Amino acid sequence: MQKRYKITVEYDGTGLLGWQLQLDGPSIQYYLERALHAFTGQEVEVSGAGRTDAGVHALRQVAHFDLDTKLDCYRIREAFNAHLREFDGQVSVLEVEEVDPHFHARYSAKGRVYRYRILNRKSPPTLLKNRVWWVPQKLDIKKMQKAAAYLIGNHDFSSFRAVKCQALSPIKTMDKIIIETLEDEIHIICKAKSFLHHQVRNIVGTLKLVGDGTLNPSDVKKILEAKDRTKAGPTSPAEGLYLEKIRY
Amino acid sequence: MQKRYKITVEYDGTGLLGWQLQLDGPSIQYYLERALHAFTGQEVEVSGAGRTDAGVHALRQVAHFDLDTKLDCYRIREAFNAHLREFDGQVSVLEVEEVDPHFHARYSAKGRVYRYRILNRKSPPTLLKNRVWWVPQKLDIKKMQKAAAYLIGNHDFSSFRAVKCQALSPIKTMDKIIIETLEDEIHIICKAKSFLHHQVRNIVGTLKLVGDGTLNPSDVKKILEAKDRTKAGPTSPAEGLYLEKIRY
Repeated sequence: MQKRYKITVEYDGTGLLGWQLQLDGPSIQYYLERALHAFTGQEVEVSGAGRTDAGVHALRQVAHFDLDTKLDCYRIREAFNAHLREFDGQVSVLEVEEVDPHFHARYSAKGRVYRYRILNRKSPPTLLKNRVWWVPQKLDIKKMQKAAAYLIGNHDFSSFRAVKCQALSPIKTMDKIIIETLEDEIHIICKAKSFLHHQVRNIVGTLKLVGDGTLNPSDVKKILEAKDRTKAGPTSPAEGLYLEKIRY
Repeated sequence: MQKRYKITVEYDGTGLLGWQLQLDGPSIQYYLERALHAFTGQEVEVSGAGRTDAGVHALRQVAHFDLDTKLDCYRIREAFNAHLREFDGQVSVLEVEEVDPHFHARYSAKGRVYRYRILNRKSPPTLLKNRVWWVPQKLDIKKMQKAAAYLIGNHDFSSFRAVKCQALSPIKTMDKIIIETLEDEIHIICKAKSFLHHQVRNIVGTLKLVGDGTLNPSDVKKILEAKDRTKAGPTSPAEGLYLEKIRY
């Protein structure tokens, strides 16, 4: 009998094409489906909570799939990780749980948390290469916090939405943006029920321009109100972005 | 006129042969000397505070060199980092200071701090690959702390000394061993004026056997007293070790 499983997945997105199955290269979904096939012999579709882009990392991405197996959850995780090893250790399954058949990784999600890491120092990264966006100009986080406050609440986020975004509406509710320093890093944590394509990276790219003095905090209010992608800052690099948590 | 410079260096030791210049492959010293040559045209020897092994990382390694230049310290750092870029971003110069000509990176050092990172969870690392030692068996840090207490103070550390260690004496003073958990990591921080070759990694390899129940905490006292390398645990992997700080 088929049962539904929820898995929590960590990955290093470097060099991968993102979560979703692609015809032209490796994706996290592809690795997970390949691993599942290797230990079950079955072709199983793994459905993720959110489609992270190429180069984006995840601390706790969530996915579900249906499977008829005698293996318990502990053994499923071990089998996943044994078979994922061949993909250079870029994907690791942290947890496997049997869930109600109505659970859906994407549609059951009540909230998502993304974390963006900026390394804000003069010298380039070594140990954090491909893990942060390196910004050598000193950023003023007080100004960035002031600017971010304009984005909280229910808004039309067209100015921060990727051209290829497939969402039906540009209207989203941003619950929280936390900006904090950790030694020579600045972390920008965004919480919402769901996000538009590139929303976090476009917000970060714009907040960076506030931090370095190119924009004033109040400009972010005008950019939001313009509902025009060309008014906001550039999309920040994928390597600084982490899908941190999905709340159910 | 020649002046003496002190530099603080961060590096990702993965795939490198360690600090010291080697005939058969890349080292941190080699990269720094190559970069210096590129922007000064001079053959300058860079002398480090400690010779980290192949695969070992540094957060704040210190070195010195003598140079006749008109560049100020800020420009020297920028020039270093511009030229280090060609070496895959594995080495970064954090600080450059002009110092008294009697300053010596190695002999002026009053203390050294090493940090060892263990990822203690069932699932293999992804984002921390080559940055931690992955130990899937649950470790008991209370027991490890109890065992570590036997190593504090002035002792003959022959049991934890590499066969090829070149120190004149196996007697060292361990000032502190701090063992703490950070989410699913265990960090072992060792502080001393100086260390024997592989001393930290051999201590960690032994403390791990206490943590997983193979040894009792009091066995570590017996191992220390045996003054015999074959009595202690195996050398833990280089990838978990960080030279964290040199105190002057």
